[in-house]
Amino acid sequence: MAISHLHCLQSVRVSFPCRPSVSNNYYYGRDNFTRKSSSLVYASTNNLDRDLHLQSKVETVLDSVKWDNRGLAVAIAQNVDTGAILMQGFANREAVATTVSSRKATFYSRSRSMLWTKGETSNNFINVHDIFLDCDRDSIIYLGKPDGPTCHTGSETCYYTPVFDLLENQQDKEDKLALTTLYSLESTIAQRKGELEVPQSGKPSWTRRLLLDEKLLCSKIREEADELCRTLEDNEDKPRAASEMADVLYHAMVLLALKDVKIEEVLDILRRRFSQSGIEEKRSRNLQS
Amino acid sequence: MAISHLHCLQSVRVSFPCRPSVSNNYYYGRDNFTRKSSSLVYASTNNLDRDLHLQSKVETVLDSVKWDNRGLAVAIAQNVDTGAILMQGFANREAVATTVSSRKATFYSRSRSMLWTKGETSNNFINVHDIFLDCDRDSIIYLGKPDGPTCHTGSETCYYTPVFDLLENQQDKEDKLALTTLYSLESTIAQRKGELEVPQSGKPSWTRRLLLDEKLLCSKIREEADELCRTLEDNEDKPRAASEMADVLYHAMVLLALKDVKIEEVLDILRRRFSQSGIEEKRSRNLQS
Repeated sequence: MAISHLHCLQSVRVSFPCRPSVSNNYYYGRDNFTRKSSSLVYASTNNLDRDLHLQSKVETVLDSVKWDNRGLAVAIAQNVDTGAILMQGFANREAVATTVSSRKATFYSRSRSMLWTKGETSNNFINVHDIFLDCDRDSIIYLGKPDGPTCHTGSETCYYTPVFDLLENQQDKEDKLALTTLYSLESTIAQRKGELEVPQSGKPSWTRRLLLDEKLLCSKIREEADELCRTLEDNEDKPRAASEMADVLYHAMVLLALKDVKIEEVLDILRRRFSQSGIEEKRSRNLQS
Repeated sequence: MAISHLHCLQSVRVSFPCRPSVSNNYYYGRDNFTRKSSSLVYASTNNLDRDLHLQSKVETVLDSVKWDNRGLAVAIAQNVDTGAILMQGFANREAVATTVSSRKATFYSRSRSMLWTKGETSNNFINVHDIFLDCDRDSIIYLGKPDGPTCHTGSETCYYTPVFDLLENQQDKEDKLALTTLYSLESTIAQRKGELEVPQSGKPSWTRRLLLDEKLLCSKIREEADELCRTLEDNEDKPRAASEMADVLYHAMVLLALKDVKIEEVLDILRRRFSQSGIEEKRSRNLQS
């Protein structure tokens, strides 16, 4: 998983010259070390070496970024589970260094000429799991998990204004998030679920029928899973396997809607399992026992 | 689906004053209309009215964007199926207007002081399905489907440089894309598949065992689908349903790896089905017949 290597770094306390409050605490603290036991002094010296080494590496990475003439690069925060682009801001050296050390997405506010960590007011921090630079090294992704809605409006993301809807005069409709396929499908199913109480004339949609008939839904999930397996067992072609998987996914998502479970929750589970090699470890253990 | 409403616009020919070649063709063409039948003149006049109306709406939307002092806004291209952030550039009015009319992600090159459409050299266009503005209206998402790798290096996306790997001195490892959870999982499974030929000592991972034993894999997929259904039938709690869905998804993805099917292909199918109401229509028809 993208975040599996992070554990090695998480225990390392990083201090940066650009954050005086942190670095001062650190260096002032050294005077006290001589009063403690020699083993503590040794351990602390090791920690100091490690911190300085890491700090030097962070500086090297920051040196490799192509900051613009204002000392900024574009910084995009993305939800590690859903892929939703949460917000976009700008970051300077200090903002990126702070994000590396705090693991909270931090930007540079051009209007206020100061650092700001998303969530410092709302508590809706974006917990950064990984940071990526682009090929030109002038654009940054903070890949992370938000504690709550990212937009100051309360919206899950800041991107809720669809241009083609505006062109169709649909600006008075509800906001529509910039959803990718899986989440658009989830949203469509949720919408159908919300309409269940509304009497409808004419032929009901397939999703509506599934939502209203749990027996039908479960028989379809079992049937589609079986058909997916048969693409392997009977050596069927790739398009058939992809199509059967689409059927499995869709029908399973209708069940998730009935259970009020978000696909994001499912992905959160998968991320945690794989970052801890959990699923593999658990299955092996179960099989051996 | 996010793209379901686009069909209404796709047949509308849009012309913009900022694109002389298109608009000139259009207006010059009017002279010929008088030579044709009156019904054609009427239809063409209707088209003209519609084009002018749409053009006026595009201008209104462009007026609402907060362009910076260079006339630019940040433009981020995102894969509609995978959620991968493909690249980030800048757009001016003309770039957005061109993207609206051509449906190809178009940017303004600051270094060359000119418009450029991603793919005009490589043919790897990004086919834009929807465009979103953020709450501040100074940041834009082009949500679309790339024809091929987006990065000039041949990488799927421009974001392949992980900062935490750099800090761990892993810069000599292969590039690592900024993958979200589902695609990290897919990548992990693909890696295990690639290692199948390599003899291993010790306990094999669960994924390796599944990849090597199709019978075990298919029995697990059927079992997990059944367990997911039972969370609904037996009224089990939400965390149990999420966990069972995670199991279904993981085991089904191992099968997809064996069939060389990418989850992106599956999502592509779902997007096409739902944008045409295909899956619902197909299922209803099958049931009725």
